[in-house]
Amino acid sequence: MKFAKIPMATINRLSIYMRTLQDLLEEDEDVISSELLAKRCGVNPAQIRKDLAYFGEFGVRGVGYRVNELTNQIKEILGLNRPWNLAMVGLGNLGSALIRHANFAKHGYIFRAAFDMDQQKVGKVLPNGIAINHVDELEEIVKEREIHMGIIATPASAAQAVANQMVLGGINGILNFAPVQIQVPDCCHVENMDFTIKLDAIAYHLSFGS
Amino acid sequence: MKFAKIPMATINRLSIYMRTLQDLLEEDEDVISSELLAKRCGVNPAQIRKDLAYFGEFGVRGVGYRVNELTNQIKEILGLNRPWNLAMVGLGNLGSALIRHANFAKHGYIFRAAFDMDQQKVGKVLPNGIAINHVDELEEIVKEREIHMGIIATPASAAQAVANQMVLGGINGILNFAPVQIQVPDCCHVENMDFTIKLDAIAYHLSFGS
Repeated sequence: MKFAKIPMATINRLSIYMRTLQDLLEEDEDVISSELLAKRCGVNPAQIRKDLAYFGEFGVRGVGYRVNELTNQIKEILGLNRPWNLAMVGLGNLGSALIRHANFAKHGYIFRAAFDMDQQKVGKVLPNGIAINHVDELEEIVKEREIHMGIIATPASAAQAVANQMVLGGINGILNFAPVQIQVPDCCHVENMDFTIKLDAIAYHLSFGS
Repeated sequence: MKFAKIPMATINRLSIYMRTLQDLLEEDEDVISSELLAKRCGVNPAQIRKDLAYFGEFGVRGVGYRVNELTNQIKEILGLNRPWNLAMVGLGNLGSALIRHANFAKHGYIFRAAFDMDQQKVGKVLPNGIAINHVDELEEIVKEREIHMGIIATPASAAQAVANQMVLGGINGILNFAPVQIQVPDCCHVENMDFTIKLDAIAYHLSFGS
């Protein structure tokens, strides 16, 4: 399955639809109207139809979407019908909080390795059972444990070197919490999570309206 | 100053340009060519020119951008030539890590209040000198301390009620780390920071190419 030129915004909304559908499953809902699903996702029903139309026909006219079916279809579209192995680099306050966060495992993202450059932290075992390795071992361990994605939660000054090691280890997807733009080859996809950039967007809206 | 219909992607890139210019200032650079600035920001020079063109003329032909001048101009464009007061709600692992993060104050975002519903946490004083209040006091304290923006780092189940309290307190900008879509009136601007949605985007790229 390969779909050309799907807008990134569509991919992000599909995740939101899937999360909302998973909540509905937990609420034992079998079927949901496109209006109600749209409302819970904070979009309009036409947007959902348009986003799904890239990938085929979904939903039943006059009925809506079958919750379980559409959940599984979106999982397949996004490549989430399988687990993904993660490595965390940087076990400061933020990295330590993230690696403890239940939301990763819930969605199939499993931490398999953790790295820091602080010798005081190396060897410590985290609550999820993973021992912290020195960042010098990153490339080797990432290959051994078949890590697919890396999370960078280091200071800005260390982020580029870490990204380089990740790429050498074969990681092609990076979630970057460090407040710096990292450069990677085209084969690698980076998503940035600099929260002050989101605050800047809020500041702009508060200052000048939206 | 009011600019109509600026794309959100432009606003986000302006933040990145500003961050990069601030790094250049720390490196004592006075002037930077548009090519070099673009390279450090991970975009092409035409993109920078296009983004800035919404707001006027910047840069000197044949010279490039004056680092200090452009930094201040982008600050003014985004509404960042002033400090913003923040409240954090939810002092679990993630909220506690975020409120300790130096990156907020560095960019003019100052925590003025912190809230939790756990009585064991209420009254404790955080490293930044702020005492944790009970979330029931949110509306009142937000008004008293003139809080402009709220950060939600609660579990998903608590996020909507917290958002409602924030809006009642006069907060019109929310950064939401809870993995749920919150509903707010049109006057309020929400930015979502659900990191697993970013991982879904990475999973899609790894599965089907970009």
